Amino acid sequence: MRVFVLGGDGYLGWPTALHLSRAGHEIAVLDNFARRRYDEEMGVESLVPIESLPTRVDAWREHTGRDVQSFVVDLADAEALYEVIREFAPEAIVHFAEQRSAPYSMIDRQHAVYTQHNNVLGTLNLLFAIQEIDPSIHLVKLGTMGEYGTPNIDIEEGWLDVTHKGRTDRVLYPKRPGSYYHLSKVHDSHNIEFACRTWGLRATDLNQGIVYGQQTPETAIDERLATRFDYDAIFGTVLNRFVIQAVLGEPLTVYGSGSQTRGIIDIRDTTECLRLSVEHPAEPGEFRVFNQMTESVTIAELAQVVRHASPSVVDIDWLENPRIEADAHHYQVTHRRLVEMGLDPHHLSETLISSMFPIVRRYQERVDRAALRPHVNWRRPANPVRATGSALAAAKIE
Amino acid sequence: MRVFVLGGDGYLGWPTALHLSRAGHEIAVLDNFARRRYDEEMGVESLVPIESLPTRVDAWREHTGRDVQSFVVDLADAEALYEVIREFAPEAIVHFAEQRSAPYSMIDRQHAVYTQHNNVLGTLNLLFAIQEIDPSIHLVKLGTMGEYGTPNIDIEEGWLDVTHKGRTDRVLYPKRPGSYYHLSKVHDSHNIEFACRTWGLRATDLNQGIVYGQQTPETAIDERLATRFDYDAIFGTVLNRFVIQAVLGEPLTVYGSGSQTRGIIDIRDTTECLRLSVEHPAEPGEFRVFNQMTESVTIAELAQVVRHASPSVVDIDWLENPRIEADAHHYQVTHRRLVEMGLDPHHLSETLISSMFPIVRRYQERVDRAALRPHVNWRRPANPVRATGSALAAAKIE
Repeated sequence: MRVFVLGGDGYLGWPTALHLSRAGHEIAVLDNFARRRYDEEMGVESLVPIESLPTRVDAWREHTGRDVQSFVVDLADAEALYEVIREFAPEAIVHFAEQRSAPYSMIDRQHAVYTQHNNVLGTLNLLFAIQEIDPSIHLVKLGTMGEYGTPNIDIEEGWLDVTHKGRTDRVLYPKRPGSYYHLSKVHDSHNIEFACRTWGLRATDLNQGIVYGQQTPETAIDERLATRFDYDAIFGTVLNRFVIQAVLGEPLTVYGSGSQTRGIIDIRDTTECLRLSVEHPAEPGEFRVFNQMTESVTIAELAQVVRHASPSVVDIDWLENPRIEADAHHYQVTHRRLVEMGLDPHHLSETLISSMFPIVRRYQERVDRAALRPHVNWRRPANPVRATGSALAAAKIE
Repeated sequence: MRVFVLGGDGYLGWPTALHLSRAGHEIAVLDNFARRRYDEEMGVESLVPIESLPTRVDAWREHTGRDVQSFVVDLADAEALYEVIREFAPEAIVHFAEQRSAPYSMIDRQHAVYTQHNNVLGTLNLLFAIQEIDPSIHLVKLGTMGEYGTPNIDIEEGWLDVTHKGRTDRVLYPKRPGSYYHLSKVHDSHNIEFACRTWGLRATDLNQGIVYGQQTPETAIDERLATRFDYDAIFGTVLNRFVIQAVLGEPLTVYGSGSQTRGIIDIRDTTECLRLSVEHPAEPGEFRVFNQMTESVTIAELAQVVRHASPSVVDIDWLENPRIEADAHHYQVTHRRLVEMGLDPHHLSETLISSMFPIVRRYQERVDRAALRPHVNWRRPANPVRATGSALAAAKIE
């Protein structure tokens, strides 16, 4: 199948592109390198060095004989986007090309506006491109479990059967997201559902849990194929950050009581979920939602797993929660559909955690310890400042 | 009370500003004149000529001795927005400053992107301005009944009590909007609810039905105070368009079977709902939603009322529906809260309709008959075109 991976230079986009390529699909990746620019803006970088996209593509060809085409395009540039979709003529589009950090979106007004601009309007351009060029293209879009928030009722897969005053309907699951980033994904979901209902497009919305891990069978083949390993308080997801803190002998930074519960997923399962979604497309007009997570854990439990796996003594630093979110809460999530399609999940284990330690040790001199501490507070966004980095300067739509 | 009316040069913003001014409030209006530019872009104009904002303001002062300050600012220009909010220091902000036409948002990709850019990011700038300058400012925001779509369960006022698998929660009412315009209002609602929950802002979201009528007690004082009377297929709301068609001897254009049911409201009640909302503010942290409509009617019933009120014979032209929407459907709407606050609704009557006829007759030579026919089709948006008008050229955010 011809699959276009948007955001294919990122933490998950790149391993997904390789996984799909190895499964025999014809792959092109598109990226505007925004993620690399956020590093420059924030003054941090991936713990594991990553190669340029051309070097990555060359290394993959060298090892597997498979070509991965690459296009440097911003989804805000509709003309260029239409052109590459016409040229590559994909049967499926996997869409990772969004700003993915909640704290980044909460820095200040400009970062909030940038995030919703980039994510919502970029995806809107993509919907029109699909509708005009080839409405049979299957859109596989990354959402997040954070769209749901922590409702007091069970979380279903995107839709909810409601009975109210003796009548029933099936409605989009009501959302209560926790940041302007999470909100951008909620907006996307509404726009995509409308495009399916109105134009007959076909889409799969993957509400993904927190991803952990850094290696997949494909990225492990060669150092040049490595994907990002973020540890900073803006882009580092919680488990990866804990592992790095453990190796450095820094305390694990738990926000609040740590009893917040989250859905999590191993990076290898992410790439497999994407393969399953692509190979079993939605029907024309269908907007389907899968909860792409494999288990629920509290943040305190994650910290305990890392402590136990660590060969040295690890402290926990209980910080005031910089986010505004429920502390103790109900969290019961349905996540059956990907398993029904064939997902055989990796569950969180000390073995997996332990396997991350040597990677961290190898690169530990690259860590900027100050970047581990949270400095974005949900209650008090920074005062408005001039755009500082090229990422924000790129925020224009034509 | 000091009340800032954003979009205060528009169809409803201007009469609302006058109504609040007459009620004794200190009023400033802000507008970027986007609505006047859409006229230029589309080649149409209000049936009733409208004066420039400075002339309107002068006429109001002449008749009432009351000042209305005016500011020409685009919500996309955050720096200017912050500055005028600091300068005027409002206690309440009434926010009409959005692109308000569903067909306009469905013309093509650029108009869809423009609509969501203008509405969603403009409102996001406003939320940050309120949070940073004075979080006690009460935001009164115009939404639309079209956000709900036509669910098979009763429509409540913004929130829904849900029981699911034996547990209960109060959730944002699930939406199924019918255009990229309606979607922009759904996105706004989510962003505003988050700002109330996270920053303690106070907001009232007014999900308004289809407004009809053109005169209020205040605009009728002097011709120079008149508000817009739109009849074209893009910006003309259905009942106003029917009245104009009846006077012209043109058939009333009913889309589909006409059994689509809608909530409607008299323009005089709109201005009164705004006064009531401003004078009874939401609590800090509260996101409250009122359904601002006074009765439900089918489109065919509206056509019948206009036929009966008309002194001459009126035909109905049953057109294929250019929109994608349910034809026959459940429609039961709760709209109690504004009545509880004191709204005494005007109900649709032949008398009101008849009172509109002389206004139309006086200006009927201004009508462009071609503009009455729908030319935007939900199924087939136009191919992407270069931005044609200054409205789109203004679509930039800093």
